[in-house]
Parts: sequence; structure tokens; C-alpha cells
Amino acid sequence: MKTPTLYLSSPDEVEAAYYESFLQSDINMMKALWATDDVVCIHPGSEIMSGYDAVIRSWAYIFESGTMPEFNYQVLKRTQSNNLAVHLVAESLSSGDQVVVVIATNVYQQFEKGWQIIEHHASVAQTQHEGHTLQ
Amino acid sequence: MKTPTLYLSSPDEVEAAYYESFLQSDINMMKALWATDDVVCIHPGSEIMSGYDAVIRSWAYIFESGTMPEFNYQVLKRTQSNNLAVHLVAESLSSGDQVVVVIATNVYQQFEKGWQIIEHHASVAQTQHEGHTLQ
Repeated sequence: MKTPTLYLSSPDEVEAAYYESFLQSDINMMKALWATDDVVCIHPGSEIMSGYDAVIRSWAYIFESGTMPEFNYQVLKRTQSNNLAVHLVAESLSSGDQVVVVIATNVYQQFEKGWQIIEHHASVAQTQHEGHTLQ
Repeated sequence: MKTPTLYLSSPDEVEAAYYESFLQSDINMMKALWATDDVVCIHPGSEIMSGYDAVIRSWAYIFESGTMPEFNYQVLKRTQSNNLAVHLVAESLSSGDQVVVVIATNVYQQFEKGWQIIEHHASVAQTQHEGHTLQ
């Protein structure tokens, strides 16, 4: 499948598409959202994935590794100046009775072809096991 | 001791002072480097410290907790637009035979009073034990 050509007009649009591509394990969408050079991605606990190819490979590996957890996210802070934007995001991933809260710093840049993601830095903030009731 | 008043004219100047204050456990210098509201700090493995007071308290706690490790850092990437800058930094902390590599995303903003730090997001990339030789 061909990588779609997108023109996204705000960091929020890129962010929504980014998390949607994660939820859908859509590697072609993911490919379209990253700038094509000098990008970095730090998955929770990982070293730096540096450069477009390494970043896309890491996502392909994640998407091929298994079932996606239940997921939602909340943007906690937006800072923007001209063609650069930084978002602080709380991601919540649920799988079985385990809930993992991940904090992500997402950095977006505006190019001629629209806004794209240039950095995703994620780290685990907490891991919780949901309580079971006997009702 | 009074918090010093600083005017720092670039993100690099703030970054150098920031790591110097860390190395020197200098809480007054640290106080002067952060913007005074709406700041966030994520230490490795921690939740979000949100707001100036919480961020400064977290640094005071770290500085009071013990001996500083040997430390050096390398800026891997700088992105700047107008009055916002994002730096990707590799921090190396050595204590005994253990070396911890931390990746930090540092975000700087320019105000009337100069550049200040508004976000520090750090996560552990790797922990190594240095090999011993028997020579």
C-alpha cells in the first residue's frame, strides 16, 4: 500500500492522526506523519531511534508484535511558536487488569507540506493493576 | 541565599547553567533558570512535576539526597523557531562502576527576561556496569 500524501494544517491534526495510526497499527499512515529526515523517537525505556528509517522500523516492529492495548490520551500542555510546537501528552494503555500511564513529549514542525512530527519522547510514569471486586 | 537574577541570551546558555547547577547542587541557580509558571519536569521514571514550586521542590529533594554522580552531557539535536527551542540531550551519569545514560528533551522559551527552561523530560536509555580488569 502506498504511503498516503497528507497536508495537515495544525499540530493537533498530526497528533490525532498519529494516535489513530497507533490504534489501527497503520504503518502507512505512520509513515506519512513523520518528517523525512532528522527525526527521533524514544519509546518507553528505549534508546533513541534516530532518523526516519529507524523510527518507521521501530513502529513496524511494534505493530507486528501483537494486539494493541486499549488506549486513550490527553494533551496536558501545548506550547507553540511560529512553525514549532511542543505537546505534553498523558497516554493511558490498558491490557487485561494492567494500566500503564506513559508521558510523551511530542514535537511538531511546519514544513511546506504541512505539519509533521519530528520527535516523540515517551516514558512510563506509572503501572497500576486494577482492583478486582467479587460482586 | 537570594535567587540570582539572570538574563540568558540563548537556549545553550540556559542549558549550560542548568547542568552546572545540577553538578553543583545549586538550588538557587536552578530556581533562576526555570520560567515561573506552567513548567513541567519529568525525572527518569517519575510522574510529571507540574508547576514551578513542584519542580523546584523535586530538585531540592534530589540535591539533599546525596552525592552527585560524575556527569557529562552531549547535545544531540537542536530545533529552534522564534522564541521556542527544543534540545535532545544525552546525559551520562557515573557512580562507582555503574554508568547510566539518560535521554533528555529540554524545552526553552524566550521571555522579556531572557531564555528560560520550561520543560525537562528525562528517561533512562541504558544502564551499564563497567568491566573490571585484573591487571
